[in-house]
Amino acid sequence: MSQQRLRIGFIGLQAERGWGLSAHLPALRALADGFEVTAVANSSLESSTKAAQALGVPHAFASASELAQSPEVDIVVVTVKVPHHFELVKAAIEAGKHVYCEWPLGNGLEEAKILTDLAQKKGVLAVVGTQARVAPEIIHLRNLVAEGYVGEILSTTLIGASPPWGGSIDKPNAYTYDRANGANLLTIPFGHTIAALFDVLGPIAELSARLDVRRKTATLVETGESIPATSPDQVLVAGTLESGAPISAHYYGGESKGDGLIWRIVGTQGELQLTGPGGHSQLVQLELFGAQGETKKLEKLPLPKKLADDATDGPIVGNVRRVYQALAADLRDDTQTAPSFADAVKVHQVIAAIEAAAESKGFARPADF
Amino acid sequence: MSQQRLRIGFIGLQAERGWGLSAHLPALRALADGFEVTAVANSSLESSTKAAQALGVPHAFASASELAQSPEVDIVVVTVKVPHHFELVKAAIEAGKHVYCEWPLGNGLEEAKILTDLAQKKGVLAVVGTQARVAPEIIHLRNLVAEGYVGEILSTTLIGASPPWGGSIDKPNAYTYDRANGANLLTIPFGHTIAALFDVLGPIAELSARLDVRRKTATLVETGESIPATSPDQVLVAGTLESGAPISAHYYGGESKGDGLIWRIVGTQGELQLTGPGGHSQLVQLELFGAQGETKKLEKLPLPKKLADDATDGPIVGNVRRVYQALAADLRDDTQTAPSFADAVKVHQVIAAIEAAAESKGFARPADF
Repeated sequence: MSQQRLRIGFIGLQAERGWGLSAHLPALRALADGFEVTAVANSSLESSTKAAQALGVPHAFASASELAQSPEVDIVVVTVKVPHHFELVKAAIEAGKHVYCEWPLGNGLEEAKILTDLAQKKGVLAVVGTQARVAPEIIHLRNLVAEGYVGEILSTTLIGASPPWGGSIDKPNAYTYDRANGANLLTIPFGHTIAALFDVLGPIAELSARLDVRRKTATLVETGESIPATSPDQVLVAGTLESGAPISAHYYGGESKGDGLIWRIVGTQGELQLTGPGGHSQLVQLELFGAQGETKKLEKLPLPKKLADDATDGPIVGNVRRVYQALAADLRDDTQTAPSFADAVKVHQVIAAIEAAAESKGFARPADF
Repeated sequence: MSQQRLRIGFIGLQAERGWGLSAHLPALRALADGFEVTAVANSSLESSTKAAQALGVPHAFASASELAQSPEVDIVVVTVKVPHHFELVKAAIEAGKHVYCEWPLGNGLEEAKILTDLAQKKGVLAVVGTQARVAPEIIHLRNLVAEGYVGEILSTTLIGASPPWGGSIDKPNAYTYDRANGANLLTIPFGHTIAALFDVLGPIAELSARLDVRRKTATLVETGESIPATSPDQVLVAGTLESGAPISAHYYGGESKGDGLIWRIVGTQGELQLTGPGGHSQLVQLELFGAQGETKKLEKLPLPKKLADDATDGPIVGNVRRVYQALAADLRDDTQTAPSFADAVKVHQVIAAIEAAAESKGFARPADF
């Protein structure tokens, strides 16, 4: 290709495990014509160096701010724990770098708003990792709804079960059981799915909600130690979309033994149902079913050829890859087709509204937050 | 058998159609050793006589009060439209007759409370037709939960779709589209299912709710005329059971092209899921699935032999038959195992709480109503 490759500086890329290794790196390698990973910064120079050597990355930095300042980096990718997002993303934007930050963008709405404003001010491309939005089945669902497959939307309902947030947890993920860390059932699996729902059905106007922690402790698998669980493992929403259609959602923690995701959209002319093994919709292989008019039973709807041809690397790598492709196109064409920080703020607003409605046992409007 | 047969006086038994003909009469004929239908009263003597002659019933009355007074009747069965229940049931109780009244018992909670008090005062057996409670799959579900199949209950969630309350309706059922008649998606399919849910999971402590009418008109199939629809065709509930487990429910009007009923119960040790072609759980063939412990996928749970042997006449007749059998046992043994008016009041309280919470956009406690 004629253009220079986009140079990725990775904050949070470990050699042995983690989302950067399992999702981002394979996606970037599949897009090697357009991207190269030039730098890594972890929590210590030792860790950065280890990852850089193991993964063939030229530059290892002792700190994220050094990476952000590096002339070898065009785009800073942030795949660390949520509580660190704000400082790291802020530093990257202030250094004038484009950013791809994993979802949730902030530990709470305010952080997301500040980062969005800052990115706007600095004129950098700010992409958030709500990858379910680019899952082929979601794109197909969105297109079908837009084309009127179900007619006018009457209502939608979601059931989602997602690990962890069950009775036991491994140490590296134990932080997700502490609500203060902002990385929980509500923000992550539910948030990813709501981000996709926006694309398909539009925003939520108003909602009532309940949050609960049913399992107040969890067992660390490595030691058998019991730790407190304060993150919600139950999310219940009864609301109304801006279109007027009611939305019901129930997400709960743990593995499901049935369909871990059921998302049904009912309209005047038909019905669509998206299912998957889990409610964390960016991670799982989704399946779309539909029936229109006189057809009485849902039938599996295969992906159109173009989407099917783009789905051969599976959901985890494929969804991240599609975000990188959108990001590259945005930089080339001066567009914003990749999930944006501004989009992330809208999801954070829904989460804030859910928290407020659950707290007050009343209702809340996401747009008021 | 040595005992005299129980003599049924039917209010609302037509020769051509209706619930009395399709459900009650076959159930009673299957129990001919214990019951005989001795009288019928419809809205006119002509209609009563026609039904009596066609169906081989000895006595036809010009009015329900004459039937209630008749010495040929032990039990008054009421299968007419909900708005007439109160006066008819009241007259029967005041005449000292036992009563089996179809659900919903009253057009609203107050009527149900008055009838319950009256039946108590008069010492008659007062049975309500929440027949889903005696569906074999519900009984099996209740037993499994009671035996600890899923361990401690973490949460439960229901999706139910039920006709009519769609875009078109036949004249005989058009009254269900007028909310004033108390015979709608909330009171009937949802009410029957909540009555069963009480048996399995206990009462609802508190709830938020939304009600909506998405299709504000319906077309009469006979004439093409458009009629107003004021009955809710969307019922959304987010609440908490007295056990502490969250309950999410979304019922909507119309046929489903997928599972019309999904009722999932998730516990610390396993999961149970009841499904059926529709959310009106007393009418449909239910199927129960479950998985415990290390079993990863839901498996169909066959009925135990005793329940399976009792399920050969299908849900519509079988569920009504089982209520009559319980009623006969109650009269014989001076028990109240059949669904009682007092039980009906509890379901009416949930409905009243849903209406109040939807109106206030706040929360409500069924026990406060």
